[in-house]
Amino acid sequence: MGTTGKVSPLAPATIAELPPIAGVRLASASAGVRYEGRTDVLLAVLDKGTTVAGVLTRSKCASAPVEWCRSRFAAGKARALVANSGNANAFTGAKGLGAVRRTAALAAEAVGCKASEVFIASTGVIGEPLDAEVIGRVLRGAALAARPENWKAAARAIMTTDTFPKLATATAKLGAAEVRINGIAKGSGMIAPDMATMLAFVFTDAPIAANVLRTLVRQETIDTFNAVTVDGDTSTSDTLLVFATGKASERGAPAIRSVGDKRIVDFRRALRAVLADLAEQIARDGEGARKLVRVHVKGAVSKNSARKIALSIANSPLVKTAMAGEDANWGRIVMAIGKAGEPANRDKLSIYFGDFRVAADGARDPSYDEKKVSVYMKRDVIDVTVDLRLGRGSDRVLTCDLTKEYVAINGDYRS
Amino acid sequence: MGTTGKVSPLAPATIAELPPIAGVRLASASAGVRYEGRTDVLLAVLDKGTTVAGVLTRSKCASAPVEWCRSRFAAGKARALVANSGNANAFTGAKGLGAVRRTAALAAEAVGCKASEVFIASTGVIGEPLDAEVIGRVLRGAALAARPENWKAAARAIMTTDTFPKLATATAKLGAAEVRINGIAKGSGMIAPDMATMLAFVFTDAPIAANVLRTLVRQETIDTFNAVTVDGDTSTSDTLLVFATGKASERGAPAIRSVGDKRIVDFRRALRAVLADLAEQIARDGEGARKLVRVHVKGAVSKNSARKIALSIANSPLVKTAMAGEDANWGRIVMAIGKAGEPANRDKLSIYFGDFRVAADGARDPSYDEKKVSVYMKRDVIDVTVDLRLGRGSDRVLTCDLTKEYVAINGDYRS
Repeated sequence: MGTTGKVSPLAPATIAELPPIAGVRLASASAGVRYEGRTDVLLAVLDKGTTVAGVLTRSKCASAPVEWCRSRFAAGKARALVANSGNANAFTGAKGLGAVRRTAALAAEAVGCKASEVFIASTGVIGEPLDAEVIGRVLRGAALAARPENWKAAARAIMTTDTFPKLATATAKLGAAEVRINGIAKGSGMIAPDMATMLAFVFTDAPIAANVLRTLVRQETIDTFNAVTVDGDTSTSDTLLVFATGKASERGAPAIRSVGDKRIVDFRRALRAVLADLAEQIARDGEGARKLVRVHVKGAVSKNSARKIALSIANSPLVKTAMAGEDANWGRIVMAIGKAGEPANRDKLSIYFGDFRVAADGARDPSYDEKKVSVYMKRDVIDVTVDLRLGRGSDRVLTCDLTKEYVAINGDYRS
Repeated sequence: MGTTGKVSPLAPATIAELPPIAGVRLASASAGVRYEGRTDVLLAVLDKGTTVAGVLTRSKCASAPVEWCRSRFAAGKARALVANSGNANAFTGAKGLGAVRRTAALAAEAVGCKASEVFIASTGVIGEPLDAEVIGRVLRGAALAARPENWKAAARAIMTTDTFPKLATATAKLGAAEVRINGIAKGSGMIAPDMATMLAFVFTDAPIAANVLRTLVRQETIDTFNAVTVDGDTSTSDTLLVFATGKASERGAPAIRSVGDKRIVDFRRALRAVLADLAEQIARDGEGARKLVRVHVKGAVSKNSARKIALSIANSPLVKTAMAGEDANWGRIVMAIGKAGEPANRDKLSIYFGDFRVAADGARDPSYDEKKVSVYMKRDVIDVTVDLRLGRGSDRVLTCDLTKEYVAINGDYRS
């Protein structure tokens, strides 16, 4: 599990090198929460003045750390992040919230801040009580060891069934200053809107007020993390947190206090790029995945309708197994469009694999060359495009194929 | 494919022996639509006076035969059924409807009735033009060969990836007379409400008016065919047709013209039993299935809410792979409850595998004996029960596990 498996064939060729972010120091540690011989705790120490915003799972059975984070967003201030892998601290009853409180208290002590300024995220098995003391034991050392350059180690500490660490970075102009945005994430099963067993932590030195950060994060999640699905299963623990230290103001970056401030445009672009990059890495590391599948829907009656149809395709086991079999089975695409329940006219729609139109006007495209399409289906990134020809709504979601390895990974996870 | 594979380990120990139904004669034939060395056409010849009702896929991309049947329900009369396997005649454009019309005309000629009294159903690949002449060639011979006892052969002719033919029978008292109900069906992937790539044909000698039959079929489908899901994928071709020849009136059965007629109660029970039996056989023959999983939800705010939660559990790839792994992974049940979006209070709910309560009051049941539950998980029929303790809504759906064989079957289907 985790680092012991083979790396996904869809992994990026190189792991991004992340620069330091002023006001952020990171450490990872081996607490032995569940795994042996690897790190499983991440501590991020944040300078005073750091704002925070985030998006959390909509699960009705959210984990204790998720509920803790939700209650902390209103204040919008953060001084530390503690994330662990191996135990999700989900469905752990009153003890679960107790463990979160205790972890926050121990982290506050180690870092020198209030417990209410500590954000917590956990991933791993559900329903096992989490012993806060086990995590607490490594926090003081981690606080002392925290360094600005520990990004790769931080990304590794939060991995579960991930086969590679996920990192992304971008820069943006904010006023005359250049600001930085770094992000790390983990997938890789139970990935679906909204959102995923996905933890993603993003850090910037830009001085962005918490309420502005909140709006930006919510808006930029729609077409990034919320447009990725591995298996349609939404976790109890999905957490995206974005921290802004504001340290770039020392280099002349203007403080952004309103989402209408025009100076924010380039920052928004860079934030979206980091979120999109991490989201795609999660799809590329879908459990057992051998193909990244991009599902494009256009000509729908609205973006929302296009999204529903795209998700119906991306979540269909029959479509996903056909992808695994390198089979240009557009009949299953038709099936998935039909079951979405959204406006669609069978006799108008067309379907493409890559640039090859395989179906048009409600029937097989007569010019469709099965051999050429078969060659296309062997690629490791497949574009499926549906044109409904009803309106101007379009959308895109990312998914991966459904392989025997997915079943193997998830049939033995706990044992 | 089809009859070449191994029989599902969940197949019933014996195949039901179906008695004749007065007014129904059956024949199967080998037309070579797609398969070699097996039958692929079923013809049912129905006596004059036969009424018909049915339930069809809600897919927005329904097949040509589905559209044909839909347009024929209003008249409510049937004299023949033609069903073929190998080609679904779905997404075949204007040619598809032409093929249906031609098949109906040829069947009408062979049987001696109007084309408008012929019902058509097709299952198999999508998007391939269907040549009606290929089917037409065998219809005259089939009409001559049709016999009251050919039930098993009829069930075999409509199989695709099914590993066993599906038959069920029941008797009911209607007034002083005993009436019979026979049913045959095929699954076995793309099975989901509403309904499945599922063809099911039910025949009775009871004299039931078409409008009464319509109401009965709609009502009794809810907890039978519409409570079965293999993979959440709804086909373009789902078809349930129920034919009532009325021949039992010769033995004194009263004609039923109103759904409020109290004499219908036992017939309704028997009809439900046949539909439920066929639906369970479809779940037992889910592609690659090794376990039948019955998901019970109680204590929900309504039956509708219980259904949504049960389907969320039954369609979760993570739950289904855990079942394949014989893993009592109730954390994934929590996840699936949480993502259903229906009212649920994490701290009230409890979860059972069989009679073993594994979680209660929002946490692991302290008395939960993992060894005993592990032994239970090795059974081939698994009951999962969720008690939400919010209200009185309850429901049950059937599904199967998700195995590597499912992926293998669906990764190679067309090639």
